[in-house]
Amino acid sequence: MRRTVFNEDHEAFRQTIRDFIESEVVPYYQEWQEQGYVPRDLYKKLGELGIFGIEVPEEYGGAGETSFKFNAVITEECARAGVSFGGSSVHTALCLPYILKYGNEEQKKRWLPHFVSGEMMTAIAMTEPGTGSDLAGMKTTAKLSDDGTHYVLNGAKTFITGGVQADRVLVCARTAPPSPDDRRGGISILVVDTRSEGYAVGRKLDKLGLRASDTAELSFTDVKVPVEDLLGEEGKAFSYLGQNLPQERLGIAIGAYAQSAAAVRFAHDYVKERTVFGKEVASFQNTKFVLADCKADVDAMQAVVDRALEALDADELTPADAASAKLFTTELAAKVIDKCLQLHGGYGYMLEYPIANMYADTRVSRIYGGTSEVMRSIVAKSMGL
Amino acid sequence: MRRTVFNEDHEAFRQTIRDFIESEVVPYYQEWQEQGYVPRDLYKKLGELGIFGIEVPEEYGGAGETSFKFNAVITEECARAGVSFGGSSVHTALCLPYILKYGNEEQKKRWLPHFVSGEMMTAIAMTEPGTGSDLAGMKTTAKLSDDGTHYVLNGAKTFITGGVQADRVLVCARTAPPSPDDRRGGISILVVDTRSEGYAVGRKLDKLGLRASDTAELSFTDVKVPVEDLLGEEGKAFSYLGQNLPQERLGIAIGAYAQSAAAVRFAHDYVKERTVFGKEVASFQNTKFVLADCKADVDAMQAVVDRALEALDADELTPADAASAKLFTTELAAKVIDKCLQLHGGYGYMLEYPIANMYADTRVSRIYGGTSEVMRSIVAKSMGL
Amino acid sequence: MRRTVFNEDHEAFRQTIRDFIESEVVPYYQEWQEQGYVPRDLYKKLGELGIFGIEVPEEYGGAGETSFKFNAVITEECARAGVSFGGSSVHTALCLPYILKYGNEEQKKRWLPHFVSGEMMTAIAMTEPGTGSDLAGMKTTAKLSDDGTHYVLNGAKTFITGGVQADRVLVCARTAPPSPDDRRGGISILVVDTRSEGYAVGRKLDKLGLRASDTAELSFTDVKVPVEDLLGEEGKAFSYLGQNLPQERLGIAIGAYAQSAAAVRFAHDYVKERTVFGKEVASFQNTKFVLADCKADVDAMQAVVDRALEALDADELTPADAASAKLFTTELAAKVIDKCLQLHGGYGYMLEYPIANMYADTRVSRIYGGTSEVMRSIVAKSMGL
Amino acid sequence: MRRTVFNEDHEAFRQTIRDFIESEVVPYYQEWQEQGYVPRDLYKKLGELGIFGIEVPEEYGGAGETSFKFNAVITEECARAGVSFGGSSVHTALCLPYILKYGNEEQKKRWLPHFVSGEMMTAIAMTEPGTGSDLAGMKTTAKLSDDGTHYVLNGAKTFITGGVQADRVLVCARTAPPSPDDRRGGISILVVDTRSEGYAVGRKLDKLGLRASDTAELSFTDVKVPVEDLLGEEGKAFSYLGQNLPQERLGIAIGAYAQSAAAVRFAHDYVKERTVFGKEVASFQNTKFVLADCKADVDAMQAVVDRALEALDADELTPADAASAKLFTTELAAKVIDKCLQLHGGYGYMLEYPIANMYADTRVSRIYGGTSEVMRSIVAKSMGL
Repeated sequence: MRRTVFNEDHEAFRQTIRDFIESEVVPYYQEWQEQGYVPRDLYKKLGELGIFGIEVPEEYGGAGETSFKFNAVITEECARAGVSFGGSSVHTALCLPYILKYGNEEQKKRWLPHFVSGEMMTAIAMTEPGTGSDLAGMKTTAKLSDDGTHYVLNGAKTFITGGVQADRVLVCARTAPPSPDDRRGGISILVVDTRSEGYAVGRKLDKLGLRASDTAELSFTDVKVPVEDLLGEEGKAFSYLGQNLPQERLGIAIGAYAQSAAAVRFAHDYVKERTVFGKEVASFQNTKFVLADCKADVDAMQAVVDRALEALDADELTPADAASAKLFTTELAAKVIDKCLQLHGGYGYMLEYPIANMYADTRVSRIYGGTSEVMRSIVAKSMGL
Repeated sequence: MRRTVFNEDHEAFRQTIRDFIESEVVPYYQEWQEQGYVPRDLYKKLGELGIFGIEVPEEYGGAGETSFKFNAVITEECARAGVSFGGSSVHTALCLPYILKYGNEEQKKRWLPHFVSGEMMTAIAMTEPGTGSDLAGMKTTAKLSDDGTHYVLNGAKTFITGGVQADRVLVCARTAPPSPDDRRGGISILVVDTRSEGYAVGRKLDKLGLRASDTAELSFTDVKVPVEDLLGEEGKAFSYLGQNLPQERLGIAIGAYAQSAAAVRFAHDYVKERTVFGKEVASFQNTKFVLADCKADVDAMQAVVDRALEALDADELTPADAASAKLFTTELAAKVIDKCLQLHGGYGYMLEYPIANMYADTRVSRIYGGTSEVMRSIVAKSMGL
Repeated sequence: MRRTVFNEDHEAFRQTIRDFIESEVVPYYQEWQEQGYVPRDLYKKLGELGIFGIEVPEEYGGAGETSFKFNAVITEECARAGVSFGGSSVHTALCLPYILKYGNEEQKKRWLPHFVSGEMMTAIAMTEPGTGSDLAGMKTTAKLSDDGTHYVLNGAKTFITGGVQADRVLVCARTAPPSPDDRRGGISILVVDTRSEGYAVGRKLDKLGLRASDTAELSFTDVKVPVEDLLGEEGKAFSYLGQNLPQERLGIAIGAYAQSAAAVRFAHDYVKERTVFGKEVASFQNTKFVLADCKADVDAMQAVVDRALEALDADELTPADAASAKLFTTELAAKVIDKCLQLHGGYGYMLEYPIANMYADTRVSRIYGGTSEVMRSIVAKSMGL
Repeated sequence: MRRTVFNEDHEAFRQTIRDFIESEVVPYYQEWQEQGYVPRDLYKKLGELGIFGIEVPEEYGGAGETSFKFNAVITEECARAGVSFGGSSVHTALCLPYILKYGNEEQKKRWLPHFVSGEMMTAIAMTEPGTGSDLAGMKTTAKLSDDGTHYVLNGAKTFITGGVQADRVLVCARTAPPSPDDRRGGISILVVDTRSEGYAVGRKLDKLGLRASDTAELSFTDVKVPVEDLLGEEGKAFSYLGQNLPQERLGIAIGAYAQSAAAVRFAHDYVKERTVFGKEVASFQNTKFVLADCKADVDAMQAVVDRALEALDADELTPADAASAKLFTTELAAKVIDKCLQLHGGYGYMLEYPIANMYADTRVSRIYGGTSEVMRSIVAKSMGL
């Protein structure tokens, strides 16, 4: 069905991204996956391409775009080619909104130009070993020095995507203990320079998928963070963190949709070119029916994300709507991609086929950005349950 | 999420329909289900309400509306209340398009005013015992009389919804044998007066659900049908029949969506008012999670049908898009309604609860208007498989 | 795979039952479904056939059989033919164990011969309007008369299968109020004569399926029940009620397995005899694959119930094992039967085809005897969760 | 439920295997996965433990065991610990049966003692690039030399598990062209020495899972294979290949069952030790219900494989029964393991948790040993479809 969400500008942008991926990413992607991260050089190229500045106001070197649709295009094109830009989506989709919304003028001037150019890559550190989704339980502390010039950061974080390569990490830390009536208070965001003394990258975590983006543990031992690097107000991190979740979750939903669409395309091409028992795989009724089911599912996912994308741009996407879209698309994508892998037979199990990586990659989409269980809780609450 | 498909006119119409259902249908519906059909009087009231004339041009007594959205509203409101208007949807959604598109001026003048008022209820007879979806295999014949004034109709039809109460039935019959190179040729549509001699209603078929609409077998023994009652051209029925399928299938998809939404509402209300082991059923995490999943599914179905509805009104809904929407929504509706029934416990098995009827009713949506298997074939074909 | 649970005696018994069903049940079953109950006469014939006395000791007119396998055979054969014996399974599977285990010598002598012959049909009344599975919340009271000769029974029950035709109903009632430390205490079982004054059968409940067995509401207004009709000890009903659940649930599991096996057989026969588009339905790959999946599921269900049947006969079937078997088989049966119905196309929706009734019948198996949710709770508890 | 398939000998053997795994495999397994194969030394230890000789007659250095149950125990214990023995299962489960059944006395004497000790590891090469499951289409040729002393082998194979480390590979090759009336004729099995000239190991294939067992491409360029290394008769390979499939498929089914059981245990332990929002994860109703469903599924899988195991030992396991068991268990295992991973939250995505590897490992079980689609075809055929 004709999509109505994208206009000519978006489609021109799509073509640029598609060309870039084809020439600058696809030929090297297998290698990047094996080494476990994308080269630093890629980020520089992405910066030049303007990817990191889409939503950054012009005065700080960006394009000042307010629509999320350009980001959606990037997500779709990466999925289409079965690649990722490493930690880029964390940089733009997770970190940038906090800097834009809570950074002060001095910080924006200091950081954003480097953010846009890819010289200053960012990551965000929320989860700690043992706390999972329960952010209020975090134990990392940032104590203001006696002279009030800096915080002293101590603690550890885990599951930090892009953590190895980041230049600045938005670290959530307790600047005050939780109060009995507000477990969530007292948490602040510090934008930590990763060259600081006492800052250490721990193990690089081996993951089931997402092999081209590093995921790390971080530890902080008496790291001095200048007060100038506090983002927003002290103690307000918890309320900040919730703000951007609908957009983040819609981003994941779009990825799930786009991966599914790509999986169908991969499977389609495979079954058309391959024969068994003297017949094209595509000619078997089972092949047709399975792919038709997948196509109908992809159509539905597209309808869901397109509607949500319009709602987001209109500032109408509620947390429950975003949760519903993420829940629906990521759960369904798992089924679609599984079926498309199966149509590849033994080749579907080989990592040289993008479907195999996609199968492993997509598994995380039901977990990160809030698990499906958390999504269900949010939706249920919105129903008055 | 805010729906954008309906405007104020549609919403005003929705309120009219909702009020009508509440006062004229709900109080009697259980009784109608037990007797197996709705009273003739209902059709008269629906005619007065203008339901049958929505799409009929003003010169024939209708409202001349070209959007399918008013029909969508009726479908949604019936589902919402867990009722149906008996054979009305066959009358308007299946029969009317043929009369409007292929009827000549004389026929329209003769039939449409009575069609609109509900005095002349229509049904359509395609399926024959033993042929199922394979219309080309039909055996009912209509032989032109020697004097060319009438056809002589012989044969039998089955699965005729509204067949018991219809005044006119659009009967598909062979006016010429199939040619070797065109199995589908030679079939015509006759608009048969059900009071004709030789026309007989056979068994009323007991169905799993849809208990308020009769489904019958028909038989024709030398029924004389005036040539004036031939609809469109001789031998072209097959091409006519395909024309309206996207709209018909979208209608079923909308019903599946609306039933699912209603099921969630029924289950929601039930679990909020009911306690087990001293706790509200709604307070159990399983209840919340199940209903949240259902809600996310309903949201997705809504996105799908709303998008398709816009496409239909823009004359852009392809057969494959309609098949995809029907496949997706009806398969998913089955799962949603099943879960909502389960949340009712033993009460969900009792027909006095609308969810029980809905469970039985919705089962047919994966079969009629083309089975899910046929939908998969259509979608697969559109993918080049 | 060769089944090892049944010996020659069981197979001879199976043949007897199969013949009986074919000659005495199948020809009339459609009619019984329409009237909503089986004729009284059927119970007499079943009594003569010895069905009701299988587990009754010889001294009371039964066969004194201790294995549950004969009951399993009956369940399998009914499912195979797509029929039921009305309220018989309640009579033997639910009521009899209580009488055998808790009845005193006088009661057994008084009741069992008539129980065995089918002259005294029994039902059991536990659920009350508004309490569902929470038996401890029941409100029906049985107050001992001042002279100690009888109880005075007041209250109402619902969902009583076989309630219309029963001669004696095992009514659970409060003979003492619940104590704060034992909500479950104070409940007793009275074997109430349905001809007693003040005993009334309320509405016959219309159900989604199980149309040949009546389900009723009962009400008791100052019904005098002689103390001689108290079953077991006063106040101990709650502990009695749990005793027989594993066997009851295995019975439901066997039914789910057997219905699934029958559904596959029905679908198999249908697709072999039916053609669409000039090809046997059985020749489509989708048909083959769907039925193969169903067959594998049925094989698994058979393995599960056969193993549980051996365990039950060896007195080793734990409540958690029975819950696991019921949960697994009934949930899977729903999927299998749904697929088999779909293979029937439009005919699958017509009640003259056994698959349509089976679809409606099987839905209750995930609800009665404890819902799937209750089964999950039991299994989880056994896992230490 | 109490399992009846294993006796004291099997349980003693189980303990031996469990101890061995704990001390000799678990501490090193992560490392082996990272390097992509197990050390040669492990095979020597397994040989000493007697693993490779279980089914080998005593005269050739084995234990002469005829029951498959010991192999089942090994499969179960590996799955339980989340490990594998690299290419060992190919060695014993796939290669050995051919040598035992079709090897002549001289070959058995020559090969089996080294086979048993682990000095001569074997692999089997059937699949070729581009042929998949269609063995009749293979293109590798083995031409008898003019002097009749050796075959000259040319061609390529792919997906060879254990191919890198094998000392002898059972290569299927055409010794004669297919005849028009027998596409399957003309294929023979050669037991090729991997040190032969012209024998080359191509790429080691990166797989989604099974990371501790190497999978390779092989190529043969004028490899001289002595006629003494022909296994069985010339041209009969096709009939040989089918012989052992039921046992092979049951082996996969047992693995699927055992992995599922292990996954439930991993998830159980995880949710018991982990808290979110101040509550044990195990205490959430969703956790309980999900694990209960998994447990019921595992119970069913156990019933299926235990029954099939008895049938195999009694020489009664038909190809269709084995296909049914593989289809059922592997499809269900995918669902169970997916749910258990989800219960781990973000940790489930980290390869240091066995559930993450298991998720990737288990995906192949629906593909190798014949895909689920092939299993469905076999089952359908056995149903007369």
